Amino acid sequence: MAGLYSGWNRAWVVAIGVLMMIVPAAAQQHDPFYWLGEINKASAVMVVERGIVPKELGSRIADAVRQVIATGDSPGAVRSGNYLVIEDALTKIGGPDMTRLHSGRSRQDIGATIQRLAMRDDLLAALDRLNAVRAALLGLAQKYPNAIIPAYTWGVQAQPITLGHYLTAYLSAFDRDAERLREAYARLNLSALGAAALGTSSFPVDRPRLAQLLGFDGVVENSLDANQISPIDTGAEAVGIASTSALTIGTFIADITQQYAESKPWFLLTEGELTGTSSIMPQKRNPSGLVFLRAQASTVIGHAQTFVLVAHNVAAGMSDYKPFINPKQGNQPNNVVRELTDLLDGFRLLIGTLAFDEARALDEVNADYSTTTELADTLQREADVPFRVGHHFASELVNFGRAHGLKPSDIPYSEAQRVYTEAAGAFKLANTNLPLSEAAFRRALTAENMMRVSQGLGGPQPAEVARMIAGQAARLQADRAWLDDQRSKLKDASAALDAAFSALRNP
Amino acid sequence: MAGLYSGWNRAWVVAIGVLMMIVPAAAQQHDPFYWLGEINKASAVMVVERGIVPKELGSRIADAVRQVIATGDSPGAVRSGNYLVIEDALTKIGGPDMTRLHSGRSRQDIGATIQRLAMRDDLLAALDRLNAVRAALLGLAQKYPNAIIPAYTWGVQAQPITLGHYLTAYLSAFDRDAERLREAYARLNLSALGAAALGTSSFPVDRPRLAQLLGFDGVVENSLDANQISPIDTGAEAVGIASTSALTIGTFIADITQQYAESKPWFLLTEGELTGTSSIMPQKRNPSGLVFLRAQASTVIGHAQTFVLVAHNVAAGMSDYKPFINPKQGNQPNNVVRELTDLLDGFRLLIGTLAFDEARALDEVNADYSTTTELADTLQREADVPFRVGHHFASELVNFGRAHGLKPSDIPYSEAQRVYTEAAGAFKLANTNLPLSEAAFRRALTAENMMRVSQGLGGPQPAEVARMIAGQAARLQADRAWLDDQRSKLKDASAALDAAFSALRNP
Amino acid sequence: MAGLYSGWNRAWVVAIGVLMMIVPAAAQQHDPFYWLGEINKASAVMVVERGIVPKELGSRIADAVRQVIATGDSPGAVRSGNYLVIEDALTKIGGPDMTRLHSGRSRQDIGATIQRLAMRDDLLAALDRLNAVRAALLGLAQKYPNAIIPAYTWGVQAQPITLGHYLTAYLSAFDRDAERLREAYARLNLSALGAAALGTSSFPVDRPRLAQLLGFDGVVENSLDANQISPIDTGAEAVGIASTSALTIGTFIADITQQYAESKPWFLLTEGELTGTSSIMPQKRNPSGLVFLRAQASTVIGHAQTFVLVAHNVAAGMSDYKPFINPKQGNQPNNVVRELTDLLDGFRLLIGTLAFDEARALDEVNADYSTTTELADTLQREADVPFRVGHHFASELVNFGRAHGLKPSDIPYSEAQRVYTEAAGAFKLANTNLPLSEAAFRRALTAENMMRVSQGLGGPQPAEVARMIAGQAARLQADRAWLDDQRSKLKDASAALDAAFSALRNP
Amino acid sequence: MAGLYSGWNRAWVVAIGVLMMIVPAAAQQHDPFYWLGEINKASAVMVVERGIVPKELGSRIADAVRQVIATGDSPGAVRSGNYLVIEDALTKIGGPDMTRLHSGRSRQDIGATIQRLAMRDDLLAALDRLNAVRAALLGLAQKYPNAIIPAYTWGVQAQPITLGHYLTAYLSAFDRDAERLREAYARLNLSALGAAALGTSSFPVDRPRLAQLLGFDGVVENSLDANQISPIDTGAEAVGIASTSALTIGTFIADITQQYAESKPWFLLTEGELTGTSSIMPQKRNPSGLVFLRAQASTVIGHAQTFVLVAHNVAAGMSDYKPFINPKQGNQPNNVVRELTDLLDGFRLLIGTLAFDEARALDEVNADYSTTTELADTLQREADVPFRVGHHFASELVNFGRAHGLKPSDIPYSEAQRVYTEAAGAFKLANTNLPLSEAAFRRALTAENMMRVSQGLGGPQPAEVARMIAGQAARLQADRAWLDDQRSKLKDASAALDAAFSALRNP
Repeated sequence: MAGLYSGWNRAWVVAIGVLMMIVPAAAQQHDPFYWLGEINKASAVMVVERGIVPKELGSRIADAVRQVIATGDSPGAVRSGNYLVIEDALTKIGGPDMTRLHSGRSRQDIGATIQRLAMRDDLLAALDRLNAVRAALLGLAQKYPNAIIPAYTWGVQAQPITLGHYLTAYLSAFDRDAERLREAYARLNLSALGAAALGTSSFPVDRPRLAQLLGFDGVVENSLDANQISPIDTGAEAVGIASTSALTIGTFIADITQQYAESKPWFLLTEGELTGTSSIMPQKRNPSGLVFLRAQASTVIGHAQTFVLVAHNVAAGMSDYKPFINPKQGNQPNNVVRELTDLLDGFRLLIGTLAFDEARALDEVNADYSTTTELADTLQREADVPFRVGHHFASELVNFGRAHGLKPSDIPYSEAQRVYTEAAGAFKLANTNLPLSEAAFRRALTAENMMRVSQGLGGPQPAEVARMIAGQAARLQADRAWLDDQRSKLKDASAALDAAFSALRNP
Repeated sequence: MAGLYSGWNRAWVVAIGVLMMIVPAAAQQHDPFYWLGEINKASAVMVVERGIVPKELGSRIADAVRQVIATGDSPGAVRSGNYLVIEDALTKIGGPDMTRLHSGRSRQDIGATIQRLAMRDDLLAALDRLNAVRAALLGLAQKYPNAIIPAYTWGVQAQPITLGHYLTAYLSAFDRDAERLREAYARLNLSALGAAALGTSSFPVDRPRLAQLLGFDGVVENSLDANQISPIDTGAEAVGIASTSALTIGTFIADITQQYAESKPWFLLTEGELTGTSSIMPQKRNPSGLVFLRAQASTVIGHAQTFVLVAHNVAAGMSDYKPFINPKQGNQPNNVVRELTDLLDGFRLLIGTLAFDEARALDEVNADYSTTTELADTLQREADVPFRVGHHFASELVNFGRAHGLKPSDIPYSEAQRVYTEAAGAFKLANTNLPLSEAAFRRALTAENMMRVSQGLGGPQPAEVARMIAGQAARLQADRAWLDDQRSKLKDASAALDAAFSALRNP
Repeated sequence: MAGLYSGWNRAWVVAIGVLMMIVPAAAQQHDPFYWLGEINKASAVMVVERGIVPKELGSRIADAVRQVIATGDSPGAVRSGNYLVIEDALTKIGGPDMTRLHSGRSRQDIGATIQRLAMRDDLLAALDRLNAVRAALLGLAQKYPNAIIPAYTWGVQAQPITLGHYLTAYLSAFDRDAERLREAYARLNLSALGAAALGTSSFPVDRPRLAQLLGFDGVVENSLDANQISPIDTGAEAVGIASTSALTIGTFIADITQQYAESKPWFLLTEGELTGTSSIMPQKRNPSGLVFLRAQASTVIGHAQTFVLVAHNVAAGMSDYKPFINPKQGNQPNNVVRELTDLLDGFRLLIGTLAFDEARALDEVNADYSTTTELADTLQREADVPFRVGHHFASELVNFGRAHGLKPSDIPYSEAQRVYTEAAGAFKLANTNLPLSEAAFRRALTAENMMRVSQGLGGPQPAEVARMIAGQAARLQADRAWLDDQRSKLKDASAALDAAFSALRNP
Repeated sequence: MAGLYSGWNRAWVVAIGVLMMIVPAAAQQHDPFYWLGEINKASAVMVVERGIVPKELGSRIADAVRQVIATGDSPGAVRSGNYLVIEDALTKIGGPDMTRLHSGRSRQDIGATIQRLAMRDDLLAALDRLNAVRAALLGLAQKYPNAIIPAYTWGVQAQPITLGHYLTAYLSAFDRDAERLREAYARLNLSALGAAALGTSSFPVDRPRLAQLLGFDGVVENSLDANQISPIDTGAEAVGIASTSALTIGTFIADITQQYAESKPWFLLTEGELTGTSSIMPQKRNPSGLVFLRAQASTVIGHAQTFVLVAHNVAAGMSDYKPFINPKQGNQPNNVVRELTDLLDGFRLLIGTLAFDEARALDEVNADYSTTTELADTLQREADVPFRVGHHFASELVNFGRAHGLKPSDIPYSEAQRVYTEAAGAFKLANTNLPLSEAAFRRALTAENMMRVSQGLGGPQPAEVARMIAGQAARLQADRAWLDDQRSKLKDASAALDAAFSALRNP
């Protein structure tokens, strides 16, 4: 239905356009033909090293493999990911002896290996985009670390916090997601090659060497596990992380969305690429990008559940959950991770267009009574009034204020004194006079004061926010270094494979 | 990843090929541009009839609408589904006055209407393919109505039944699915047009007339419901039916799949289009089509759940669950119904390649003790032995037979007599002699006898099977007639719209 | 974890208390022992009528059945739902001949029958509570039919509507749910009894008579379908309706919840039973009941998906999806329907505590520009200005107003004139003077006017709201009559069964 | 519906009984009252240490806390998990000053802390049961390491493997699950206490000290994250692992279940506790425990998805996904992990009753052609025939054998020679004579040979199986040591807390 949205309407069109300008994650990854070429190169090197194939034949096989790859790389060529199609091309070049390359292999282990090769890139791509999201959130946090905003519990204004505090909370969640992705990567970057159909073979295949040549950190040891069992749990783990990340993004979107129900939000999408208008309602500036992104996040979760369904209640060895499944099925773990990558990229864009109105946010805090916790705390801290007594006084003060349509700053001091006396009396305190001067009372009700006196580890006060921003920036930097490191290792392995493969040429 | 599977291997390639040869349901349906054209034609007729637009201007609007449709219908033209793009084209032809066509409309009600127009065709297409599945099952049932097969409870052979009995059970479920689709259709084929943004308008828009012109059976009365509430529940209903149907298809697939775990199945896919081979295992003839179809069925269920997620916990008026959503989202109810249609078509193909081995099925029955229920029934019916006594005797007989590796027909009569005497004694019966002759005893243990003596309504005996096959055939015929009838009505409405629209030309 | 919430805090405690005071749906339904008694009574009548059991023995069986029921009904007695436990009790009373009652039956068909007997009551109970929800919504609609409230698209204020309009939109959805429940009931109230294990039997069991005795409207014809196939699709249908209804309730909850993000909501839970306070924040009045209810709605959806998972990818005859499954499993369709019933009851309670602030709702409308659609409509209707021109003028007027922090009513007429002239010029209109007097201009921007001039079928204007309220009230009355009618029929059937069973006593 | 299953029928009853004898995981864990006591003890120690409360008052608070705990521990006492109920009891003992214990706390951070305290025990309990499952699988593997069984691809017999190979594949998956649980534990065993409502407080609360006193490995740094964000992603992670583990268990169950469709399975539940009979079919020995367990596994997955739904599309600070939610909701992550624990325990029981029939498994292998891969491999390895040629020969041999109803061992050598000559000719080989003696040909087709000559890392041959069993045993031992270590640390922390709390008594 893409056609429904192309055309005249600037905002809608651009919204879609922008989302399309994000090069979809799937388009940036290698295709199965590429991976099959790498696998064939690695196999050629190994079968010669282990004497399964004589050097001379190995050289001819290498030539044929090289030709087939070159043909596939030429413009407009068909690039099959089916080994039997490739084998047919090899045989046409060099006769039936070419099939010795396949000694101790099967499409089953090739499929399992390609799935891991592709997923390893997919996980790294997701991490890359996750790091970009973290950078965008950090940027916003660094711009307004100490701006005061309302925070909510049960969906109701609870206490003021600072924007830096709010954003580092989400940064912590995305830091955990990065950790989960790295841990999944460690279980994933292992080779299935040489497992053959499921039980290895009678050829002296060197599985660790194949793994090394393909940049894997090791092998999936048990060959049945490699082909049949591990695709289920490693797939479920990957889609589970995608789903978890989408849930957190959805929470952030819900926070922003709730602003739009008000006539004057303090967090708004900058009018432009991600907003839309109406064909009938002249006043509308719709946060289309926000709605699209929420639907994308829900879809990631739904597709994660779809993979679980595809892998559910089928015996081992079935192909439902495997990468070489009906292409119409389209919900393999790789696709879900790629959808997460696209979601992260859209989210990063959205953060980039978020306009924050500091004054409006403070107005919202001042329009409600969310500083009264600190009034009770002040009474205990400075005047030794037990917490429950101060809490009761503050609660009655709120009832009075709301009943009279007053903001906290509008409540007469004399009324505060009266309410306190009643409250202290109800608890039978000896001294029932409000033990705060008017100035102290007024100060205790301001959000600025509440931020200043806050002193808990991890709280919204400037010192802690600065510390947490610095901490998250350091963690991001470390994660970026880790990612660079992995990519370097893969690049080095690829170069080493090319060198070993080239060396087959002249035996 | 389609490329992974194209090429040399006949079976895999063809399996995919065949699934691709099924023209996907989405490709057979009208696009939003088409529906927008129909809606504009209907609006043009109505605004003139109701005097919202003078006849002369109506004639010019109609000309412009006609031109825009013709342009979109020309080869290679862009066919936008966005009204504002179309309006821009209309305005270029006839100036701002063209926009009076849009009086009392919005992209919101247009979107809701297109969604219903498209879904109405999608539901009819699904019904069409469901009817084809029913015809295929009926064909198989009519070919072997009385062939004996094992039936299972708790996954273990339970009793023999007949193939006609087995297949009419599934036919009953698909008959119920057809009923559900028709009932959903009745709630669906109602018009949202004229609801405008959500609150109708101050123009005297004639919503019932618009509905009539577009072939709807009526209107969605409340305009807020039309745009915002009903898309949720009617969407959830449609995907729920798709999910239910996929569950039943999955059950049938599981029945067939379990055959393949045996070295000699009695239900097999004919080797060919839907089966595959192995690059390494010479003996393999894989039921690839069966596995693909199961994954497709699971995917329908997962995508149905995805729509529920997309519509979940969002306030009214959000667009998550609506048809004019981010095209990347791709899980709208229409898509799920189209995936069901494709699943039904694949299932029909699969039924067409199912080869049934009558002798092998009977062997499977004879290899186990699933007729012993009738032995106990015979004892009560013919020799007045209480059921629990006969059941106990038969159970002990089975224990004896299995312990000695005997099939039912191999058990010596004398052993049966001995076992009976012990069983009758345990219940303290007066007569502890087996009250069946050897012939009667032998006969009571055959599957053929069990089918013959069965007499319950809806049972596996020939008379009931014949009656149920005839009944299902009649229900199928009625459903086909209903479908033809709906399509005729829609065709007639379309012709009437064209006539009324043509009449605008010369006012 | 119930203990976490019992005690001192009034609101939380009472919130839970109230939810507990709702007698849970499960507690109001008959248990399997009861249904087994009814089934045994019906079987006793039928086996005598059909001569499977002689009258004299039938009389003795009936006596034993009566004794066993009486024993189970005595205080503190174990009430087994397992037929074999009951048969043991019968045999202890009357010897092995009692087991002839079971002729042509199995625990399989008994299980399938009990599931339908229980589900039939569950569906009727859900309908009963759904009708109560509709009555509560109708009451609210009748109280404030024409109160003006904002409506939203894309989560942003769109146009004013009336409360009666808003509520009748939801009433329409619940009316469709009632229709779906009645249609499911028609497919459900059919008897499986006599299907035996799956293939009926060689006894002349009269299945239609058994159905009649148990108040069923007919039989599930095919015996394999009765026990093995139909539990899947009828179960999936029932949980699908529950899920659909929960989605709609969740939408309503989201509408209300979004109010709470503002410091001054216009829709609030009356402080009391469904609201809570905070142990630390003195100002908090939390809408706990709303949050609980949303979690309950999400749980209904999750449990519906759980049933689908339980029935997914298992062969026919498996018991995963059947009623006589592991009691720890706890997600059978009946449970999900009962959870829906409890959700509906909680929702009804919540509607009862909703306090609506008419003035605040109008303020919210007046604080934004959602009437500007009508300004453009007025220009076309009264001054013949093409819609797109009026829309452009209004859009520019909104930009001016927002940039200057003005409400619609604050915009100087002279500025409106200036903006109009520019807009008309951009479209090259001949007349570029605003063709509305200041009074007409002001009036066009009021919500009251917009409601008054609205004239579409199903719109928010008083006449249509009154008509829709009356229509929904009539539909509710009809549904209540239908429900009473079904319950009467079941009561009559139960009395007829008791009479026929009593007649066995003295043959 | 538990009553449905109590009673006479030994197997069903016992099946349920056994499942009930598994002390449900929930019953083995501490309740909220216990954790609230621990939290109050830790707070009492800290507020005195930090001077928030003077020593003397601290001593009185400690006495009151001690009294309240003792009261709750007395038989039949109500054990509230609501802090406000406890505070009321404290106040009754010591007056309003007792409420200073709550300085800088809220029910929000207490709730988040209890959730983590409980989940930490839940994760360790799941690990404990997972280790028991691994031990049971290891026991079976050690009993029959080299027994030959068929393995499958696409649901069709593929190649023989050994039971040790098969079981170590699953052991690898459970080893990964253990790794995931340990990684989740590291993210989970951090303290939220002192986060207060969400923004810490103005009291000098020492969060790291509170964490240490409660046995946490650290704190959840950001206080908003601690209460509002982390419960979503840590909850989703926990239920995701449960779902993943249930998927793997379901795969194993599907493997076993498929055996039951045959009249002679080679893997059977020992008749007894986990099997059932039929009230009507004398021959039935149903694997009820297997079916129950599959439904339990599906339910774990469904409840995991339910938690995701409960946390989906709600703004931060909502309580849907939190531990102190409506107790009727019942799908919090803790419950799902406890359901996993019960599932693991049932699975361990099931493994314990699995009877393996070595001869029958070998018969099944010998009845099919799954050794022909090795025939082709032998031809290449020993006679230098290119793999594809050998594969083609073997495939034609299978066609011949199946067409004539022959097992591999029955094929005449002369026919093999003929088929080879044709195959070699088709590939234009120089030598078209079968280059294997009859003995070599026969040997190449036996499963025993295929196991012996297999030499890949991780294959089914005895040496690799022995190595993998030893490896899995070592990993299990290490995991048990890790678990013991964690439990020791928690015990030590608990003792240290008690000591510090006791020291408050005499200041």
